[in-house]
Amino acid sequence: MRQHKLALCKDHFLDWVPEQVEHTIRRYHMFTHPDKLLLAVSGGKDSLSLWDILYRLGYVVDGLYIGLGIDGGVRYSDASLEYAQLFAQDRNLNLHVVDIVAEYGESIIELAIRTHRGRYKPCSVCGLTKRHVMNRFARQNKYYAILTGHNLDDEAAILFGNTISWVGSYLLHQAPVLEANRPGLIRKAKPLCRIYEREMAAYALLRGITYIQDECPYATGSTSLYHKAILNKLESDRPGTKLSFYLSFLQAKRNGLFSPSVDQKVESIHTCPECGQPTSAPGRCAFCRMLVPVEEIPEFSQSKGAS
Amino acid sequence: MRQHKLALCKDHFLDWVPEQVEHTIRRYHMFTHPDKLLLAVSGGKDSLSLWDILYRLGYVVDGLYIGLGIDGGVRYSDASLEYAQLFAQDRNLNLHVVDIVAEYGESIIELAIRTHRGRYKPCSVCGLTKRHVMNRFARQNKYYAILTGHNLDDEAAILFGNTISWVGSYLLHQAPVLEANRPGLIRKAKPLCRIYEREMAAYALLRGITYIQDECPYATGSTSLYHKAILNKLESDRPGTKLSFYLSFLQAKRNGLFSPSVDQKVESIHTCPECGQPTSAPGRCAFCRMLVPVEEIPEFSQSKGAS
Repeated sequence: MRQHKLALCKDHFLDWVPEQVEHTIRRYHMFTHPDKLLLAVSGGKDSLSLWDILYRLGYVVDGLYIGLGIDGGVRYSDASLEYAQLFAQDRNLNLHVVDIVAEYGESIIELAIRTHRGRYKPCSVCGLTKRHVMNRFARQNKYYAILTGHNLDDEAAILFGNTISWVGSYLLHQAPVLEANRPGLIRKAKPLCRIYEREMAAYALLRGITYIQDECPYATGSTSLYHKAILNKLESDRPGTKLSFYLSFLQAKRNGLFSPSVDQKVESIHTCPECGQPTSAPGRCAFCRMLVPVEEIPEFSQSKGAS
Repeated sequence: MRQHKLALCKDHFLDWVPEQVEHTIRRYHMFTHPDKLLLAVSGGKDSLSLWDILYRLGYVVDGLYIGLGIDGGVRYSDASLEYAQLFAQDRNLNLHVVDIVAEYGESIIELAIRTHRGRYKPCSVCGLTKRHVMNRFARQNKYYAILTGHNLDDEAAILFGNTISWVGSYLLHQAPVLEANRPGLIRKAKPLCRIYEREMAAYALLRGITYIQDECPYATGSTSLYHKAILNKLESDRPGTKLSFYLSFLQAKRNGLFSPSVDQKVESIHTCPECGQPTSAPGRCAFCRMLVPVEEIPEFSQSKGAS
């Protein structure tokens, strides 16, 4: 591991990864052992390995699998669910499943096509839906925090994209922990945010975890994969770049680089009249606006056809 | 010019570049026609083309060539001076020359070696020296502003480096204009900050400007060239990336993304007791500390040999 100037044998590596995760959990005050935790499980190496690590560290974590109805010729969603179920059954862990088609009558792809929000890619619809469902499920079932398997490569790629375009509000809200700072909003934490993707792949392999190896069929050509490739180039030329890029950003933030006034604008508190979830603007939240466009609601039907 | 979705013939291109520069000068309130201006002239395409453009736009601009004493097997400094002199003579423009060896008894390379500040590269010593000499010369001769030929590629590469390492104070101080906000500090402006490097090369070629084509022999392998290569990759995949990266940074800054409190720390006012120039910390400025290390000053000689 050139990035850490460290070489470990299998046994020490398998101890080292959970130690790093535990350090991250404590460093960013993510959660403690008594907390009731919900992990977003995709069936991929990161979320299943994180579940394994947290189980080994003695945390009590339930899984939530969100069925997106993506096939892409590789039974993507069905196969992902099977890996998640297999993992949970083997370890006697509790896996909840929310199926988008059963719940809302449409797959992510159908939603994206109908609402014209995914002409080229359904990714924004998918992200919006997952955020909505995760928060709703965690609220209804009184979880303290939602955990996701974002690793360092994911976080660095998101940061790179936000930096290239200098979107202030995104920069202000990227962090290892997103506080539950609005009523109805559940705390979110990313315990793998300091672990490289290849370290996670090695961990899954060495622990014998079987997971879905296909990328989502819709990820091909995505901006985040492009930014990952650029960062891989930087990392291969100067090992440690991804980690120092991410950590120096967090340090600069702690040092007060960003103006809190920009933050306050974003932090306004509203509740969606449709689903009751917190939203950043008055009126229906982005998810409910997507689900039922305004022209399909009877009292707004007169505006049908207007721009 | 895919980055602007624009294609121009020679004559229109040669009008378009000065229009863009004039727009930049006004947009950032850099200077006006009556101001007495000093341009840092290296003999390269950017500074000579900028001198040509400003001359065509009717600004009165003197040149300042700083002789660094760099040879590198290609008579780098001597050849650069010849190009600058040729340009000035042809147009009857006023070129001042400050020779570092004549002034301080050592070339940049000798300074870097003696002071152990340039084990691998003399670039930081070179930058420090040029900033010192430019400001001193402009103060003594009562210029309103110092202009430099930094183009968009230069600015984007500097920004990229500052962003990858998240150095807050550097991010706060990168701008098309550096205000004269400390006594003795002369205003600095970069009128080419929105023009791509390849546009400047095309301008020099089409205007028949002869310039030093060699890069500085010490630039090979520098971080800024490495960052330029990364940005060239981004630009070639997504034309316009360099410009939008730089402009969206400036916009985010105007929108108040950064906290001014970080700025205040940097803006403290001190005067170097040795040279009388402004400096950010009490005591001798970084240039004077480099020129005469503290152990060589009689009253400090007892500390000789201490760490």
